Amino acid sequence: MTLETVSMNRSHGGVRGVYKHASRETATGMTFSVFVPPHQDGAKLPVVWYLSGLTCTHANVTEKGEFRRACAELGLIFVAPDTSPRGEGVPGDPTGAYDFGLGAGFYVDATQAPFAPNYRMWSYVTKELPELIAEHFPVNPQRQSILGHSMGGHGALTIALRHPGRYRAASAFSPIAAPSQVPWGTKALGGYLGEAHGDAWRKHDTVALIEDGARVSDFLVDVGDADQFLTTQLRPELLERACAQADIPLVLRRQPGYDHSYYFVSTFMEDHLRWHAARLNG
Amino acid sequence: MTLETVSMNRSHGGVRGVYKHASRETATGMTFSVFVPPHQDGAKLPVVWYLSGLTCTHANVTEKGEFRRACAELGLIFVAPDTSPRGEGVPGDPTGAYDFGLGAGFYVDATQAPFAPNYRMWSYVTKELPELIAEHFPVNPQRQSILGHSMGGHGALTIALRHPGRYRAASAFSPIAAPSQVPWGTKALGGYLGEAHGDAWRKHDTVALIEDGARVSDFLVDVGDADQFLTTQLRPELLERACAQADIPLVLRRQPGYDHSYYFVSTFMEDHLRWHAARLNG
Repeated sequence: MTLETVSMNRSHGGVRGVYKHASRETATGMTFSVFVPPHQDGAKLPVVWYLSGLTCTHANVTEKGEFRRACAELGLIFVAPDTSPRGEGVPGDPTGAYDFGLGAGFYVDATQAPFAPNYRMWSYVTKELPELIAEHFPVNPQRQSILGHSMGGHGALTIALRHPGRYRAASAFSPIAAPSQVPWGTKALGGYLGEAHGDAWRKHDTVALIEDGARVSDFLVDVGDADQFLTTQLRPELLERACAQADIPLVLRRQPGYDHSYYFVSTFMEDHLRWHAARLNG
Repeated sequence: MTLETVSMNRSHGGVRGVYKHASRETATGMTFSVFVPPHQDGAKLPVVWYLSGLTCTHANVTEKGEFRRACAELGLIFVAPDTSPRGEGVPGDPTGAYDFGLGAGFYVDATQAPFAPNYRMWSYVTKELPELIAEHFPVNPQRQSILGHSMGGHGALTIALRHPGRYRAASAFSPIAAPSQVPWGTKALGGYLGEAHGDAWRKHDTVALIEDGARVSDFLVDVGDADQFLTTQLRPELLERACAQADIPLVLRRQPGYDHSYYFVSTFMEDHLRWHAARLNG
Protein backbone atom coordinates (compact mmCIF):
# COMPACT_ATOMS: atom_id res chain seq x y z
CA MET A 1 0.00 0.00 0.00
CA THR A 2 1.50 3.33 -1.00
CA LEU A 3 1.62 6.34 1.21
CA GLU A 4 1.97 9.97 0.19
CA THR A 5 3.76 12.25 2.63
CA VAL A 6 1.82 15.51 2.93
CA SER A 7 4.13 17.18 5.45
CA MET A 8 6.83 16.33 7.97
CA ASN A 9 8.23 18.36 10.86
CA ARG A 10 10.75 17.57 13.52
CA SER A 11 9.09 17.90 16.90
CA HIS A 12 10.21 17.02 20.43
CA GLY A 13 13.13 15.05 19.05
CA GLY A 14 10.93 12.89 16.83
CA VAL A 15 9.06 13.31 13.58
CA ARG A 16 5.49 14.42 13.10
CA GLY A 17 4.11 13.55 9.66
CA VAL A 18 0.83 13.85 7.80
CA TYR A 19 0.18 11.13 5.24
CA LYS A 20 -2.42 10.37 2.62
CA HIS A 21 -3.43 7.13 0.94
CA ALA A 22 -6.19 5.64 -1.20
CA SER A 23 -8.37 3.65 1.17
CA ARG A 24 -9.93 0.37 0.03
CA GLU A 25 -12.46 0.57 2.86
CA THR A 26 -13.79 4.07 2.31
CA ALA A 27 -13.07 4.21 -1.44
CA THR A 28 -11.65 7.70 -0.86
CA GLY A 29 -8.35 9.32 -0.11
CA MET A 30 -7.75 9.26 3.64
CA THR A 31 -5.39 11.50 5.60
CA PHE A 32 -3.85 10.77 9.01
CA SER A 33 -1.00 11.96 11.20
CA VAL A 34 1.71 9.97 12.97
CA PHE A 35 4.25 11.02 15.57
CA VAL A 36 7.31 8.82 15.80
CA PRO A 37 9.42 9.55 18.88
CA PRO A 38 13.20 9.44 18.91
CA HIS A 39 14.31 5.79 18.94
CA GLN A 40 17.19 3.50 18.10
CA ASP A 41 17.47 2.14 14.57
CA GLY A 42 15.63 -1.13 14.25
CA ALA A 43 13.53 -0.65 17.41
CA LYS A 44 9.84 -1.55 17.29
CA LEU A 45 7.77 0.84 19.38
CA PRO A 46 4.39 0.67 21.10
CA VAL A 47 1.62 2.45 19.22
CA VAL A 48 -1.20 4.55 20.67
CA TRP A 49 -4.30 5.07 18.54
CA TYR A 50 -6.15 8.32 19.07
CA LEU A 51 -9.70 8.70 17.71
CA SER A 52 -11.06 12.22 17.36
CA GLY A 53 -14.48 13.67 17.94
CA LEU A 54 -17.24 15.31 15.91
CA THR A 55 -16.11 17.87 13.30
CA CYS A 56 -12.44 16.94 13.71
CA THR A 57 -9.84 15.75 11.25
CA HIS A 58 -6.41 14.35 12.17
CA ALA A 59 -5.31 18.00 12.54
CA ASN A 60 -7.13 18.98 15.74
CA VAL A 61 -5.27 16.68 18.11
CA THR A 62 -2.08 17.01 16.08
CA GLU A 63 -2.04 20.76 16.63
CA LYS A 64 -3.76 21.09 19.99
CA GLY A 65 -3.36 17.74 21.76
CA GLU A 66 0.02 18.38 23.46
CA PHE A 67 0.91 14.69 23.25
CA ARG A 68 4.34 14.78 21.63
CA ARG A 69 6.40 15.72 24.65
CA ALA A 70 5.05 12.77 26.64
CA CYS A 71 5.22 10.39 23.64
CA ALA A 72 8.86 11.36 23.13
CA GLU A 73 9.66 10.70 26.76
CA LEU A 74 7.70 7.43 26.89
CA GLY A 75 8.71 6.12 23.47
CA LEU A 76 5.21 5.93 22.03
CA ILE A 77 4.12 6.20 18.40
CA PHE A 78 0.88 8.21 18.21
CA VAL A 79 -1.53 7.75 15.27
CA ALA A 80 -4.46 10.10 14.62
CA PRO A 81 -6.87 9.07 11.82
CA ASP A 82 -9.56 11.24 10.29
CA THR A 83 -13.14 10.86 11.55
CA SER A 84 -14.93 10.11 8.27
CA PRO A 85 -14.43 9.67 4.57
CA ARG A 86 -14.33 12.94 2.64
CA GLY A 87 -14.20 14.11 -0.94
CA GLU A 88 -16.20 14.36 -4.09
CA GLY A 89 -19.23 12.09 -4.12
CA VAL A 90 -19.11 11.26 -0.40
CA PRO A 91 -22.59 11.95 1.00
CA GLY A 92 -22.90 14.05 4.14
CA ASP A 93 -25.73 15.11 6.38
CA PRO A 94 -28.58 16.27 4.12
CA THR A 95 -29.07 19.37 6.28
CA GLY A 96 -25.37 20.08 6.66
CA ALA A 97 -25.43 19.32 10.38
CA TYR A 98 -22.12 18.81 12.21
CA ASP A 99 -23.12 15.63 14.01
CA PHE A 100 -23.60 13.24 11.11
CA GLY A 101 -21.78 12.50 7.86
CA LEU A 102 -18.57 14.39 7.12
CA GLY A 103 -16.45 14.59 10.27
CA ALA A 104 -18.88 12.31 12.09
CA GLY A 105 -18.32 8.71 10.99
CA PHE A 106 -18.91 7.35 14.53
CA TYR A 107 -16.47 4.47 13.91
CA VAL A 108 -19.08 2.13 12.38
CA ASP A 109 -19.41 0.33 9.06
CA ALA A 110 -22.58 1.82 7.61
CA THR A 111 -25.17 -0.57 6.21
CA GLN A 112 -27.64 2.06 5.01
CA ALA A 113 -27.81 3.89 1.68
CA PRO A 114 -26.25 6.17 0.66
CA PHE A 115 -23.56 5.82 3.37
CA ALA A 116 -22.62 2.14 3.12
CA PRO A 117 -20.05 2.42 0.29
CA ASN A 118 -17.85 5.03 2.03
CA TYR A 119 -18.64 5.14 5.74
CA ARG A 120 -16.57 2.16 6.84
CA MET A 121 -14.60 3.77 9.65
CA TRP A 122 -14.78 0.66 11.87
CA SER A 123 -12.95 -1.48 9.30
CA TYR A 124 -10.70 1.42 8.37
CA VAL A 125 -9.51 2.03 11.92
CA THR A 126 -9.35 -1.62 13.06
CA LYS A 127 -8.06 -3.34 9.90
CA GLU A 128 -6.83 -1.23 7.01
CA LEU A 129 -4.99 1.50 8.85
CA PRO A 130 -3.22 -0.88 11.30
CA GLU A 131 -1.90 -2.86 8.32
CA LEU A 132 -0.70 0.32 6.66
CA ILE A 133 0.92 1.62 9.84
CA ALA A 134 2.65 -1.72 10.46
CA GLU A 135 4.03 -1.64 6.92
CA HIS A 136 5.38 1.91 7.01
CA PHE A 137 6.26 2.69 10.64
CA PRO A 138 8.41 1.00 13.31
CA VAL A 139 5.52 -0.32 15.41
CA ASN A 140 5.28 -3.39 17.61
CA PRO A 141 1.77 -4.76 16.93
CA GLN A 142 1.90 -6.68 20.21
CA ARG A 143 1.92 -3.36 22.05
CA GLN A 144 -1.07 -1.27 20.99
CA SER A 145 -3.44 0.90 22.97
CA ILE A 146 -6.32 3.19 22.11
CA LEU A 147 -7.90 6.38 23.35
CA GLY A 148 -10.19 9.07 22.03
CA HIS A 149 -12.27 12.16 22.66
CA SER A 150 -16.06 12.43 22.63
CA MET A 151 -17.21 10.51 19.51
CA GLY A 152 -13.65 9.18 19.42
CA GLY A 153 -13.93 8.13 23.07
CA HIS A 154 -16.97 6.11 22.03
CA GLY A 155 -14.88 4.65 19.21
CA ALA A 156 -11.92 3.82 21.44
CA LEU A 157 -13.96 2.08 24.14
CA THR A 158 -16.12 0.05 21.73
CA ILE A 159 -13.11 -1.00 19.66
CA ALA A 160 -11.23 -2.07 22.79
CA LEU A 161 -14.21 -4.04 24.09
CA ARG A 162 -14.63 -5.89 20.79
CA HIS A 163 -10.94 -6.77 20.35
CA PRO A 164 -10.03 -8.57 23.57
CA GLY A 165 -6.28 -8.83 23.94
CA ARG A 166 -5.42 -6.48 21.12
CA TYR A 167 -5.22 -3.21 23.05
CA ARG A 168 -3.26 -3.22 26.28
CA ALA A 169 -4.94 -0.01 27.42
CA ALA A 170 -8.09 1.92 26.57
CA SER A 171 -9.06 5.35 27.82
CA ALA A 172 -11.22 8.28 26.85
CA PHE A 173 -11.81 11.97 27.28
CA SER A 174 -15.53 12.87 27.47
CA PRO A 175 -16.74 9.72 25.68
CA ILE A 176 -20.25 9.26 24.35
CA ALA A 177 -20.75 6.30 26.67
CA ALA A 178 -24.15 5.07 25.56
CA PRO A 179 -24.90 6.31 22.05
CA SER A 180 -28.14 4.29 21.86
CA GLN A 181 -29.54 6.48 24.61
CA VAL A 182 -28.53 10.02 23.51
CA PRO A 183 -29.38 12.33 20.60
CA TRP A 184 -25.97 12.31 18.86
CA GLY A 185 -25.84 8.54 19.00
CA THR A 186 -29.38 7.68 17.97
CA LYS A 187 -29.10 10.00 14.98
CA ALA A 188 -25.79 8.47 13.90
CA LEU A 189 -26.55 4.81 14.60
CA GLY A 190 -29.96 5.23 12.97
CA GLY A 191 -28.53 6.90 9.91
CA TYR A 192 -25.64 4.51 9.41
CA LEU A 193 -27.11 1.22 10.72
CA GLY A 194 -30.89 1.62 10.37
CA GLU A 195 -33.59 2.50 12.81
CA ALA A 196 -33.91 -0.74 14.79
CA HIS A 197 -32.49 -0.56 18.33
CA GLY A 198 -31.11 -4.06 17.93
CA ASP A 199 -27.89 -5.99 17.87
CA ALA A 200 -26.29 -3.71 15.27
CA TRP A 201 -26.62 -0.77 17.64
CA ARG A 202 -25.53 -2.68 20.75
CA LYS A 203 -22.23 -3.58 19.08
CA HIS A 204 -21.48 0.15 18.85
CA ASP A 205 -22.51 1.17 22.33
CA THR A 206 -20.00 0.91 25.18
CA VAL A 207 -22.60 0.44 27.89
CA ALA A 208 -24.55 -2.14 25.88
CA LEU A 209 -21.38 -4.08 25.00
CA ILE A 210 -20.50 -4.33 28.69
CA GLU A 211 -24.08 -5.39 29.53
CA ASP A 212 -23.77 -8.04 26.84
CA GLY A 213 -20.61 -9.47 28.36
CA ALA A 214 -17.67 -7.69 26.67
CA ARG A 215 -14.76 -7.06 29.03
CA VAL A 216 -11.50 -5.13 29.29
CA SER A 217 -8.98 -5.13 32.11
CA ASP A 218 -9.74 -1.51 33.04
CA PHE A 219 -10.71 1.92 31.69
CA LEU A 220 -9.49 5.44 32.42
CA VAL A 221 -12.05 8.14 31.63
CA ASP A 222 -11.85 11.89 32.25
CA VAL A 223 -14.82 14.21 31.88
CA GLY A 224 -15.11 17.92 32.60
CA ASP A 225 -17.84 18.85 35.03
CA ALA A 226 -18.45 22.07 33.04
CA ASP A 227 -18.83 20.12 29.78
CA GLN A 228 -21.99 21.38 28.10
CA PHE A 229 -22.66 17.90 26.71
CA LEU A 230 -22.11 15.99 29.95
CA THR A 231 -25.66 15.18 30.94
CA THR A 232 -27.28 15.11 27.51
CA GLN A 233 -24.78 13.33 25.24
CA LEU A 234 -21.94 11.81 27.28
CA ARG A 235 -23.68 10.36 30.35
CA PRO A 236 -20.68 8.93 32.17
CA GLU A 237 -22.95 7.73 35.00
CA LEU A 238 -24.27 5.01 32.66
CA LEU A 239 -20.71 3.83 32.06
CA GLU A 240 -20.03 3.95 35.79
CA ARG A 241 -23.03 1.77 36.52
CA ALA A 242 -22.26 -0.73 33.74
CA CYS A 243 -18.63 -1.08 34.81
CA ALA A 244 -19.63 -1.52 38.45
CA GLN A 245 -22.11 -4.28 37.57
CA ALA A 246 -19.52 -5.99 35.33
CA ASP A 247 -16.64 -5.60 37.79
CA ILE A 248 -14.60 -3.63 35.25
CA PRO A 249 -12.23 -1.33 37.13
CA LEU A 250 -13.10 2.15 35.92
CA VAL A 251 -11.16 5.24 36.90
CA LEU A 252 -13.73 7.95 36.18
CA ARG A 253 -12.54 11.45 37.04
CA ARG A 254 -14.89 14.43 36.99
CA GLN A 255 -12.48 17.30 36.46
CA PRO A 256 -13.78 20.49 38.07
CA GLY A 257 -14.30 23.46 35.78
CA TYR A 258 -13.21 21.76 32.56
CA ASP A 259 -15.28 21.82 29.38
CA HIS A 260 -15.39 19.73 26.19
CA SER A 261 -12.51 21.48 24.38
CA TYR A 262 -8.93 20.60 23.59
CA TYR A 263 -7.95 22.84 26.50
CA PHE A 264 -9.39 20.03 28.60
CA VAL A 265 -7.96 17.19 26.51
CA SER A 266 -4.45 18.65 26.40
CA THR A 267 -4.47 19.16 30.18
CA PHE A 268 -4.93 15.45 30.89
CA MET A 269 -3.27 13.98 27.79
CA GLU A 270 -0.02 13.32 29.62
CA ASP A 271 -1.83 11.46 32.41
CA HIS A 272 -3.49 9.21 29.84
CA LEU A 273 -0.27 8.54 27.99
CA ARG A 274 1.50 7.60 31.23
CA TRP A 275 -1.36 5.26 32.08
CA HIS A 276 -1.05 3.71 28.60
CA ALA A 277 2.73 3.49 28.80
CA ALA A 278 2.57 1.61 32.11
CA ARG A 279 0.43 -1.04 30.40
CA LEU A 280 2.25 -1.00 27.04
CA ASN A 281 5.68 -1.32 28.55
CA GLY A 282 4.64 -3.69 31.36
CA MET B 1 -10.35 50.47 30.19
CA THR B 2 -13.05 47.92 29.55
CA LEU B 3 -12.39 44.41 28.43
CA GLU B 4 -14.75 42.04 26.65
CA THR B 5 -14.28 38.34 27.36
CA VAL B 6 -14.48 36.43 24.07
CA SER B 7 -13.91 32.95 25.52
CA MET B 8 -12.59 31.27 28.65
CA ASN B 9 -11.50 27.68 29.22
CA ARG B 10 -9.99 25.94 32.19
CA SER B 11 -6.62 24.53 31.18
CA HIS B 12 -3.79 22.94 33.14
CA GLY B 13 -5.37 24.07 36.39
CA GLY B 14 -5.52 27.70 35.31
CA VAL B 15 -7.66 29.80 33.01
CA ARG B 16 -7.05 30.55 29.36
CA GLY B 17 -9.03 33.52 28.10
CA VAL B 18 -9.40 35.51 24.91
CA TYR B 19 -10.25 39.18 25.37
CA LYS B 20 -11.10 42.13 23.17
CA HIS B 21 -10.89 45.86 23.75
CA ALA B 22 -11.01 49.15 21.88
CA SER B 23 -7.39 50.26 21.49
CA ARG B 24 -6.50 53.94 21.72
CA GLU B 25 -3.19 53.26 19.96
CA THR B 26 -4.45 51.37 16.91
CA ALA B 27 -7.91 52.95 16.84
CA THR B 28 -9.31 49.47 16.27
CA GLY B 29 -10.61 46.59 18.32
CA MET B 30 -7.69 44.43 19.47
CA THR B 31 -7.85 40.80 20.58
CA PHE B 32 -5.34 39.00 22.80
CA SER B 33 -5.11 35.87 24.93
CA VAL B 34 -3.95 35.43 28.51
CA PHE B 35 -3.21 32.31 30.51
CA VAL B 36 -3.41 32.72 34.27
CA PRO B 37 -1.94 29.76 36.15
CA PRO B 38 -3.40 28.41 39.38
CA HIS B 39 -2.44 30.74 42.22
CA GLN B 40 -3.44 31.87 45.67
CA ASP B 41 -6.00 34.65 46.04
CA GLY B 42 -4.28 37.99 46.16
CA ALA B 43 -0.99 36.76 44.70
CA LYS B 44 0.73 38.90 42.06
CA LEU B 45 2.41 36.77 39.43
CA PRO B 46 5.26 37.26 36.97
CA VAL B 47 4.11 37.93 33.41
CA VAL B 48 5.67 36.63 30.20
CA TRP B 49 4.95 38.53 26.98
CA TYR B 50 4.91 36.45 23.80
CA LEU B 51 5.04 38.22 20.44
CA SER B 52 3.96 36.21 17.39
CA GLY B 53 5.28 36.08 13.86
CA LEU B 54 4.06 36.95 10.39
CA THR B 55 0.45 35.95 9.52
CA CYS B 56 -0.30 35.06 13.16
CA THR B 57 -2.95 36.29 15.56
CA HIS B 58 -3.04 35.56 19.30
CA ALA B 59 -4.53 32.19 18.38
CA ASN B 60 -1.50 30.43 16.88
CA VAL B 61 0.59 30.24 20.02
CA THR B 62 -2.51 29.86 22.17
CA GLU B 63 -3.49 26.68 20.34
CA LYS B 64 -0.11 25.30 19.28
CA GLY B 65 2.47 26.78 21.63
CA GLU B 66 2.29 24.15 24.42
CA PHE B 67 3.15 26.74 27.05
CA ARG B 68 0.38 26.23 29.60
CA ARG B 69 1.75 23.14 31.33
CA ALA B 70 5.04 24.88 32.08
CA CYS B 71 3.38 28.19 32.98
CA ALA B 72 1.11 26.36 35.42
CA GLU B 73 4.09 24.64 37.03
CA LEU B 74 6.20 27.80 37.13
CA GLY B 75 3.44 30.22 38.11
CA LEU B 76 3.71 32.46 35.05
CA ILE B 77 1.02 34.57 33.40
CA PHE B 78 1.41 34.36 29.61
CA VAL B 79 0.10 37.15 27.36
CA ALA B 80 -0.17 36.80 23.57
CA PRO B 81 -1.16 39.95 21.64
CA ASP B 82 -2.18 40.13 18.00
CA THR B 83 0.45 41.09 15.40
CA SER B 84 -1.27 44.06 13.77
CA PRO B 85 -4.41 46.16 13.81
CA ARG B 86 -7.29 44.64 11.87
CA GLY B 87 -10.77 45.58 10.76
CA GLU B 88 -12.68 47.81 8.45
CA GLY B 89 -10.65 50.67 7.10
CA VAL B 90 -7.27 49.32 8.25
CA PRO B 91 -4.96 49.37 5.22
CA GLY B 92 -3.02 46.22 4.35
CA ASP B 93 -0.40 45.30 1.80
CA PRO B 94 -1.58 46.70 -1.56
CA THR B 95 -0.77 43.37 -3.25
CA GLY B 96 -2.21 41.23 -0.44
CA ALA B 97 1.23 39.87 0.50
CA TYR B 98 1.60 38.06 3.84
CA ASP B 99 4.72 39.92 4.97
CA PHE B 100 3.38 43.46 5.34
CA GLY B 101 0.24 45.04 6.72
CA LEU B 102 -2.38 42.77 8.29
CA GLY B 103 -0.70 40.17 10.49
CA ALA B 104 2.65 41.86 9.95
CA GLY B 105 2.88 44.97 12.12
CA PHE B 106 6.58 44.38 12.92
CA TYR B 107 6.16 46.00 16.36
CA VAL B 108 6.82 49.54 15.19
CA ASP B 109 4.85 52.80 15.30
CA ALA B 110 4.38 53.62 11.64
CA THR B 111 5.13 57.15 10.49
CA GLN B 112 4.14 56.70 6.84
CA ALA B 113 0.73 57.12 5.19
CA PRO B 114 -1.63 55.31 5.13
CA PHE B 115 -0.30 53.17 8.00
CA ALA B 116 0.51 55.74 10.69
CA PRO B 117 -2.98 56.06 12.22
CA ASN B 118 -3.41 52.33 12.98
CA TYR B 119 -0.04 50.58 12.87
CA ARG B 120 1.18 51.49 16.35
CA MET B 121 2.13 48.05 17.61
CA TRP B 122 5.22 49.34 19.46
CA SER B 123 3.16 51.61 21.68
CA TYR B 124 0.38 49.05 21.88
CA VAL B 125 2.64 46.27 23.16
CA THR B 126 4.90 48.39 25.38
CA LYS B 127 2.41 50.89 26.82
CA GLU B 128 -1.29 50.34 26.28
CA LEU B 129 -1.53 46.58 26.70
CA PRO B 130 0.70 46.45 29.81
CA GLU B 131 -1.58 49.03 31.47
CA LEU B 132 -4.64 47.03 30.54
CA ILE B 133 -3.13 43.77 31.75
CA ALA B 134 -2.04 45.34 35.03
CA GLU B 135 -5.57 46.61 35.55
CA HIS B 136 -7.38 43.34 34.86
CA PHE B 137 -5.00 40.49 35.76
CA PRO B 138 -2.97 39.60 38.88
CA VAL B 139 0.43 40.58 37.51
CA ASN B 140 3.52 41.86 39.27
CA PRO B 141 4.87 44.60 36.94
CA GLN B 142 8.28 44.26 38.60
CA ARG B 143 8.55 40.76 37.18
CA GLN B 144 8.09 40.86 33.41
CA SER B 145 9.87 39.04 30.62
CA ILE B 146 9.43 38.84 26.86
CA LEU B 147 9.90 36.34 24.06
CA GLY B 148 8.69 35.85 20.53
CA HIS B 149 8.90 33.95 17.28
CA SER B 150 10.29 35.20 13.95
CA MET B 151 8.88 38.72 13.50
CA GLY B 152 7.87 38.42 17.16
CA GLY B 153 11.42 37.42 18.06
CA HIS B 154 12.53 40.66 16.44
CA GLY B 155 9.89 42.46 18.48
CA ALA B 156 10.89 40.81 21.75
CA LEU B 157 14.61 41.50 21.39
CA THR B 158 14.23 45.11 20.26
CA ILE B 159 11.70 45.87 23.00
CA ALA B 160 13.96 44.34 25.65
CA LEU B 161 16.98 46.30 24.40
CA ARG B 162 15.08 49.59 24.47
CA HIS B 163 13.58 49.12 27.95
CA PRO B 164 16.59 48.44 30.18
CA GLY B 165 15.47 47.02 33.50
CA ARG B 166 11.87 46.41 32.53
CA TYR B 167 12.19 42.81 31.31
CA ARG B 168 14.12 40.39 33.49
CA ALA B 169 14.54 37.98 30.58
CA ALA B 170 14.34 38.13 26.79
CA SER B 171 14.48 35.21 24.38
CA ALA B 172 13.43 34.29 20.88
CA PHE B 173 12.63 31.48 18.51
CA SER B 174 13.94 32.11 14.99
CA PRO B 175 14.12 35.91 15.32
CA ILE B 176 14.59 38.28 12.40
CA ALA B 177 17.85 39.49 13.93
CA ALA B 178 18.74 42.30 11.57
CA PRO B 179 15.65 43.49 9.70
CA SER B 180 17.57 46.35 8.03
CA GLN B 181 19.59 43.76 6.15
CA VAL B 182 16.94 41.25 4.96
CA PRO B 183 13.96 41.36 2.56
CA TRP B 184 11.16 40.97 5.14
CA GLY B 185 12.66 43.74 7.24
CA THR B 186 13.53 46.26 4.56
CA LYS B 187 10.05 45.95 3.10
CA ALA B 188 8.39 46.44 6.49
CA LEU B 189 10.66 49.16 7.88
CA GLY B 190 10.52 50.98 4.55
CA GLY B 191 6.74 50.75 4.37
CA TYR B 192 6.09 51.79 7.95
CA LEU B 193 9.00 54.14 8.66
CA GLY B 194 10.07 55.43 5.25
CA GLU B 195 12.88 54.46 2.94
CA ALA B 196 15.85 56.04 4.69
CA HIS B 197 18.16 53.52 6.36
CA GLY B 198 18.61 55.88 9.28
CA ASP B 199 18.02 56.17 12.96
CA ALA B 200 14.34 55.21 12.67
CA TRP B 201 15.33 51.83 11.25
CA ARG B 202 18.20 51.26 13.67
CA LYS B 203 15.83 51.58 16.63
CA HIS B 204 13.93 48.58 15.27
CA ASP B 205 16.87 46.35 14.44
CA THR B 206 18.34 44.12 17.14
CA VAL B 207 21.83 44.03 15.67
CA ALA B 208 21.89 47.79 15.06
CA LEU B 209 20.63 48.54 18.58
CA ILE B 210 23.45 46.46 20.05
CA GLU B 211 25.97 48.16 17.75
CA ASP B 212 24.60 51.49 18.96
CA GLY B 213 25.15 50.58 22.60
CA ALA B 214 21.90 49.02 23.84
CA ARG B 215 22.46 46.21 26.33
CA VAL B 216 20.65 43.36 28.09
CA SER B 217 22.00 40.92 30.66
CA ASP B 218 21.70 37.98 28.27
CA PHE B 219 19.68 36.43 25.44
CA LEU B 220 18.47 32.90 24.73
CA VAL B 221 17.82 32.22 21.04
CA ASP B 222 16.84 28.96 19.33
CA VAL B 223 16.84 28.51 15.57
CA GLY B 224 16.18 25.39 13.51
CA ASP B 225 18.94 24.45 11.14
CA ALA B 226 16.31 23.25 8.63
CA ASP B 227 14.48 26.59 8.79
CA GLN B 228 13.86 27.73 5.21
CA PHE B 229 14.28 31.37 6.27
CA LEU B 230 17.48 30.92 8.25
CA THR B 231 20.04 32.34 5.86
CA THR B 232 17.84 34.81 3.99
CA GLN B 233 15.62 36.42 6.65
CA LEU B 234 16.76 35.43 10.15
CA ARG B 235 20.57 35.58 9.95
CA PRO B 236 21.43 34.59 13.52
CA GLU B 237 25.14 34.87 12.70
CA LEU B 238 24.74 38.66 12.66
CA LEU B 239 23.27 38.55 16.15
CA GLU B 240 26.05 36.24 17.28
CA ARG B 241 28.72 38.66 16.03
CA ALA B 242 27.02 41.73 17.51
CA CYS B 243 26.58 40.07 20.92
CA ALA B 244 30.19 38.88 20.91
CA GLN B 245 31.46 42.38 20.14
CA ALA B 246 29.23 43.87 22.83
CA ASP B 247 29.98 41.20 25.44
CA ILE B 248 26.30 40.27 25.70
CA PRO B 249 26.06 36.63 26.79
CA LEU B 250 24.08 34.93 24.02
CA VAL B 251 22.95 31.33 24.20
CA LEU B 252 22.35 30.61 20.50
CA ARG B 253 21.29 27.05 19.78
CA ARG B 254 21.05 25.71 16.24
CA GLN B 255 18.56 22.86 16.67
CA PRO B 256 19.22 20.08 14.18
CA GLY B 257 16.41 19.20 11.80
CA TYR B 258 13.93 21.79 13.09
CA ASP B 259 12.07 24.18 10.80
CA HIS B 260 10.23 27.49 11.29
CA SER B 261 6.91 26.02 12.46
CA TYR B 262 5.15 25.75 15.79
CA TYR B 263 6.35 22.13 15.92
CA PHE B 264 9.73 23.73 16.54
CA VAL B 265 8.49 26.47 18.87
CA SER B 266 6.45 24.07 21.02
CA THR B 267 9.41 21.71 21.37
CA PHE B 268 11.58 24.34 23.04
CA MET B 269 8.89 26.47 24.69
CA GLU B 270 9.36 24.80 28.05
CA ASP B 271 13.13 25.43 27.96
CA HIS B 272 12.49 29.12 27.33
CA LEU B 273 9.91 29.40 30.07
CA ARG B 274 12.24 27.74 32.59
CA TRP B 275 14.98 30.16 31.54
CA HIS B 276 12.55 33.05 32.04
CA ALA B 277 11.29 31.69 35.37
CA ALA B 278 14.81 31.45 36.75
CA ARG B 279 15.25 35.17 36.08
CA LEU B 280 11.69 36.20 37.02
CA ASN B 281 11.69 34.37 40.32
CA GLY B 282 15.33 35.11 41.15
